[in-house]
Amino acid sequence: MKTRAGIVGFRGYSGMELVRILRSHPHVEPVLMEHRSDAAPEAHPLGWKGPERIEAAPEAARNAGVAIVLLATPADVSMQLAPGFLEAGIRVIDLSGAFRLRTVDRYRHWYKEEHTQPALLEEAVYGLPEFYRERIAAARLVANPGCYPTAANLALRPLVQAGCIDRSHGVVCDAKSGVSGAGRKPSLKTSFCEVTENFSAYSILGHRHVPEVLLNSGLEEHEFSFTAHLLPIHRGILETLYFRASEGVTAERILASYQTAYGMERFVKLYAPGVVPDLRPVQHTNECHIGFRLDDATRRAVVVVCIDNLGKGAAGQAVQNLNLMLGLAEEEGLECAS
Amino acid sequence: MKTRAGIVGFRGYSGMELVRILRSHPHVEPVLMEHRSDAAPEAHPLGWKGPERIEAAPEAARNAGVAIVLLATPADVSMQLAPGFLEAGIRVIDLSGAFRLRTVDRYRHWYKEEHTQPALLEEAVYGLPEFYRERIAAARLVANPGCYPTAANLALRPLVQAGCIDRSHGVVCDAKSGVSGAGRKPSLKTSFCEVTENFSAYSILGHRHVPEVLLNSGLEEHEFSFTAHLLPIHRGILETLYFRASEGVTAERILASYQTAYGMERFVKLYAPGVVPDLRPVQHTNECHIGFRLDDATRRAVVVVCIDNLGKGAAGQAVQNLNLMLGLAEEEGLECAS
Amino acid sequence: MKTRAGIVGFRGYSGMELVRILRSHPHVEPVLMEHRSDAAPEAHPLGWKGPERIEAAPEAARNAGVAIVLLATPADVSMQLAPGFLEAGIRVIDLSGAFRLRTVDRYRHWYKEEHTQPALLEEAVYGLPEFYRERIAAARLVANPGCYPTAANLALRPLVQAGCIDRSHGVVCDAKSGVSGAGRKPSLKTSFCEVTENFSAYSILGHRHVPEVLLNSGLEEHEFSFTAHLLPIHRGILETLYFRASEGVTAERILASYQTAYGMERFVKLYAPGVVPDLRPVQHTNECHIGFRLDDATRRAVVVVCIDNLGKGAAGQAVQNLNLMLGLAEEEGLECAS
Amino acid sequence: MKTRAGIVGFRGYSGMELVRILRSHPHVEPVLMEHRSDAAPEAHPLGWKGPERIEAAPEAARNAGVAIVLLATPADVSMQLAPGFLEAGIRVIDLSGAFRLRTVDRYRHWYKEEHTQPALLEEAVYGLPEFYRERIAAARLVANPGCYPTAANLALRPLVQAGCIDRSHGVVCDAKSGVSGAGRKPSLKTSFCEVTENFSAYSILGHRHVPEVLLNSGLEEHEFSFTAHLLPIHRGILETLYFRASEGVTAERILASYQTAYGMERFVKLYAPGVVPDLRPVQHTNECHIGFRLDDATRRAVVVVCIDNLGKGAAGQAVQNLNLMLGLAEEEGLECAS
Repeated sequence: MKTRAGIVGFRGYSGMELVRILRSHPHVEPVLMEHRSDAAPEAHPLGWKGPERIEAAPEAARNAGVAIVLLATPADVSMQLAPGFLEAGIRVIDLSGAFRLRTVDRYRHWYKEEHTQPALLEEAVYGLPEFYRERIAAARLVANPGCYPTAANLALRPLVQAGCIDRSHGVVCDAKSGVSGAGRKPSLKTSFCEVTENFSAYSILGHRHVPEVLLNSGLEEHEFSFTAHLLPIHRGILETLYFRASEGVTAERILASYQTAYGMERFVKLYAPGVVPDLRPVQHTNECHIGFRLDDATRRAVVVVCIDNLGKGAAGQAVQNLNLMLGLAEEEGLECAS
Repeated sequence: MKTRAGIVGFRGYSGMELVRILRSHPHVEPVLMEHRSDAAPEAHPLGWKGPERIEAAPEAARNAGVAIVLLATPADVSMQLAPGFLEAGIRVIDLSGAFRLRTVDRYRHWYKEEHTQPALLEEAVYGLPEFYRERIAAARLVANPGCYPTAANLALRPLVQAGCIDRSHGVVCDAKSGVSGAGRKPSLKTSFCEVTENFSAYSILGHRHVPEVLLNSGLEEHEFSFTAHLLPIHRGILETLYFRASEGVTAERILASYQTAYGMERFVKLYAPGVVPDLRPVQHTNECHIGFRLDDATRRAVVVVCIDNLGKGAAGQAVQNLNLMLGLAEEEGLECAS
Repeated sequence: MKTRAGIVGFRGYSGMELVRILRSHPHVEPVLMEHRSDAAPEAHPLGWKGPERIEAAPEAARNAGVAIVLLATPADVSMQLAPGFLEAGIRVIDLSGAFRLRTVDRYRHWYKEEHTQPALLEEAVYGLPEFYRERIAAARLVANPGCYPTAANLALRPLVQAGCIDRSHGVVCDAKSGVSGAGRKPSLKTSFCEVTENFSAYSILGHRHVPEVLLNSGLEEHEFSFTAHLLPIHRGILETLYFRASEGVTAERILASYQTAYGMERFVKLYAPGVVPDLRPVQHTNECHIGFRLDDATRRAVVVVCIDNLGKGAAGQAVQNLNLMLGLAEEEGLECAS
Repeated sequence: MKTRAGIVGFRGYSGMELVRILRSHPHVEPVLMEHRSDAAPEAHPLGWKGPERIEAAPEAARNAGVAIVLLATPADVSMQLAPGFLEAGIRVIDLSGAFRLRTVDRYRHWYKEEHTQPALLEEAVYGLPEFYRERIAAARLVANPGCYPTAANLALRPLVQAGCIDRSHGVVCDAKSGVSGAGRKPSLKTSFCEVTENFSAYSILGHRHVPEVLLNSGLEEHEFSFTAHLLPIHRGILETLYFRASEGVTAERILASYQTAYGMERFVKLYAPGVVPDLRPVQHTNECHIGFRLDDATRRAVVVVCIDNLGKGAAGQAVQNLNLMLGLAEEEGLECAS
């Protein structure tokens, strides 16, 4: 019998992707949980059968045999819903930014709002399996990482830990994302005519995802310059990172640092020095691809990292966390993607 | 009577744009110069009358009353054609990289080929009017700048000269260009299905346009990290530049440096501190828009600069140079664009 | 001194295009007329000077010396604003569907609403200059045509009038439009992620633009099958029309019918038999391009017609009408487009 | 043990899609067969293991235990390769147009070339499983249908057979395809800058796919008007079909005709009357979605049919045929797609 996983926010892009993945998962089945009056009529073929739908409430979840809930909701809705499910003994994976920052001060500083669940904020485990696998498996509440930080942390942390980066020069992360990262709610900024054949920068030096990178990579804010950009594409994130390599660091050493970190990882792929990925091979997958180039003479280094913002950057990673929490093989339901 | 300007390479994107601009220029008319058997049949409405066509040779140019020739050709073709026109007393604006680098050594290093016209390489004036207006007006041979360097130089030079940049930390230029920058010759890399919904980095730390930036901005190679990216759009370049501001430098001082440099310029637009341009307002124009953000506490600074790679990055700037060389107002034929 | 033309609805795509065209018009200058609290903050370069702004009211218009008003507003707003301006002696060009259908019954049938200005509906002149030039020049109120009907009528009317179409077989018009035709108000249907890499049909056999085609082409509703489609592009309409040619009709006769109708027209371009236009040459212009293919043996005929939905399909045609009403040359302000 | 299926032409879009599908097929594994020196270097993560590669020849195929070969090659290459494999006892599914038209006269007429394998042309079974399931299962050589005809035939045949169409008025098929339908070989027509923000018609009334529609739908050429269009998207075909319904035909009867034909079909989905599909739900699947609208008063009818040109229009359907030929469940390897 399949484990039942509830999905709140299934009409957003991350929620839709969760449904898509879980509908062909061998050991889990999705249950749609209605939270608000969200009309959005959808055209389906005659006789189409979607997953079961119930109310987004602990009682309804228990009655439906839901063992775990995935919240693909805004941060304020997640703070409101998570406690009830947890009290009812239902584990939670939250895809919003509500539980990622560990302290209420940090949350207030970056989100400009008070956190209403400080105890849960402290308890939540940051859901980046390549870093925190054991703690995720045991967690009641997992804070699924942001899309930009997933890519940045996977690219930076092994190099910071191995001392490959001359931090006195700072690290630049120039990030570009497809439009689905902005959510499905209509807005002028994400209208077709405003985006197509255009390109723009936003949240220069002040993006809410920055503290997630600092917390998990080990860098300090003054060392890290981050700018987000909106690509005229549906899905995918490419980040170009620039730094000065520490003295004596070679391309072989950088590659070795990555291989030590990810040599056994199913979802992180490394490229040969001088070769970098583009978005195509990671789209519609849970994979993260990393390549780099080092100029030996001047120690200038560039890393290019790619993920699908709805895959490893959201729903794919949430399912990876779900598998860990349920004691399943980490790649279940994610295999046909690559 | 209009001055006649010959265009070689009028079937490429820069050449097509030159024809488009010059067809409505009040004082110049285009003459198409055929260089190779380039079949490319084009569908036109019945009775369509395009500009006159002649052979791409000095004799034919003289007979047709051509006073100046624009070469929208590859560097090797430009090196081959420029001497003949100049000897025949016909001035030349070259849009390729053939005459931009001042010395044969530098050309050999970056283009991996021997330069066949060292005297012309030395004589050529770099056609960035905002920097070299007087010399352009008097030049026989103008090297029209590359698209990436036009944006980077306009963004960097005033800050380098005013000492706003703490050069010990280096400068990063993360550049993104539309596909027309790669030319019109079919290739897998520029095929629709390879580009759409994709995004990729190329020429990491090794792009041929780098020396143009160094020569005209005043930076040294070890200080400057440049990566080019291919945007899934037709036209437009956005560059995001990162540096550490020198101690004591404020946003006001950065803005003042730009205003000193460009306050009187018709084609450079500055934004208020904290506001940055996107591509839309510069597309199909000869304009360059510049905005920036400075984080006072950490002195991290980000500049965003936008041009149309076929406008200010190629054909528009070539017409601006043409106007200067002919003693016309600099914006003639370029006015209806903005 | 320039004639002042007021623009209501200048934040929509048609209104923005009107402003763009009139800002470089040699004899007319735009005055922006604010109608509702429409926040939409726009980033502009420092010191940018846009056109003057006044209230969208007759008194304000008179005080500002506005001689004519262009309404780029929804039909209900147009019905509400037009009477006041007309009573104040200010002529009106309306870009909505409010005044195109001649009778209140027809309006009620297609727009599912009561018309509140029946006298003006009767008075209004349909603003398709190639058909109704003299009446437009003398009109107080011009109903600027819909984008789809402009293309369909220009393609059909000469053939219907010349008897080239075997109407017993019916006429099919398969129409495809860029997204700007749906307006600038954010909606899920026009969100980037819903449109990109997608394509869809809508308003099958029931589009509001159908009666405009019937009224001006001379076809009957049962003879005319129309389906609209949403192209993942910003601007442009291509319509593919199918019919059976009348017995004895040749390609030469079809071409001759078009040449009789449009031989002297500045904005309609005809292609040789067997050659059809694509969108590229009409984008950002006021032109309509028409091509066709006839299979002599079976008399199956296909016409392809292209316009820019914001050019000849809206703002361009409105300026063409404006020029006629002001006694100016019809192409003033529209010349640099082609 | 998995059956081994050879793929010739694995660097084209159809071939790449065949590899992608077969790599996760539970009972079949792909073997890449090299036919020409096709350099195309591909960047892969370090240590990436692709499928085995052998020469595209009967001997090599036999040695590698290949039981069946899929030819994703041009028609002339398919005619050249198919006989050798068949003689060696290896069954063949050909994705080109080489074996679809049944007679050499028809082939000569539409392909303007002589057919070199008339016996195989006669023997080949047209691989549309919903029509010819039993014959496909027993075939040595299957001619996989063209992308446009797959959609058109699935939409038309049930209506033609049920007499729902008043054929005296003719049938119009206005077809739109993504660019991958034109293949992966670089050309100006499929270059990004030529396609993006553009839309064009081609092969008006003369497309090579027309005879496939006539042969399998039962219509006559003079009754059928077909125009192809190039959509600025990667993958997907939408066809809009127009006809006059026979007297007395209702929407219920049309739907019933479709349900009779496809009620048990796994890959054909029907919509309620008045509702039509868009491309999104069929992309990356082997599904065909069909919807329609009938205007009772005038009997004008419109059918909209959608497939993925690389899925049901090419590789997906080829795998469906492969499953039939191998006695497997028809949806094996195709399940995770929908």
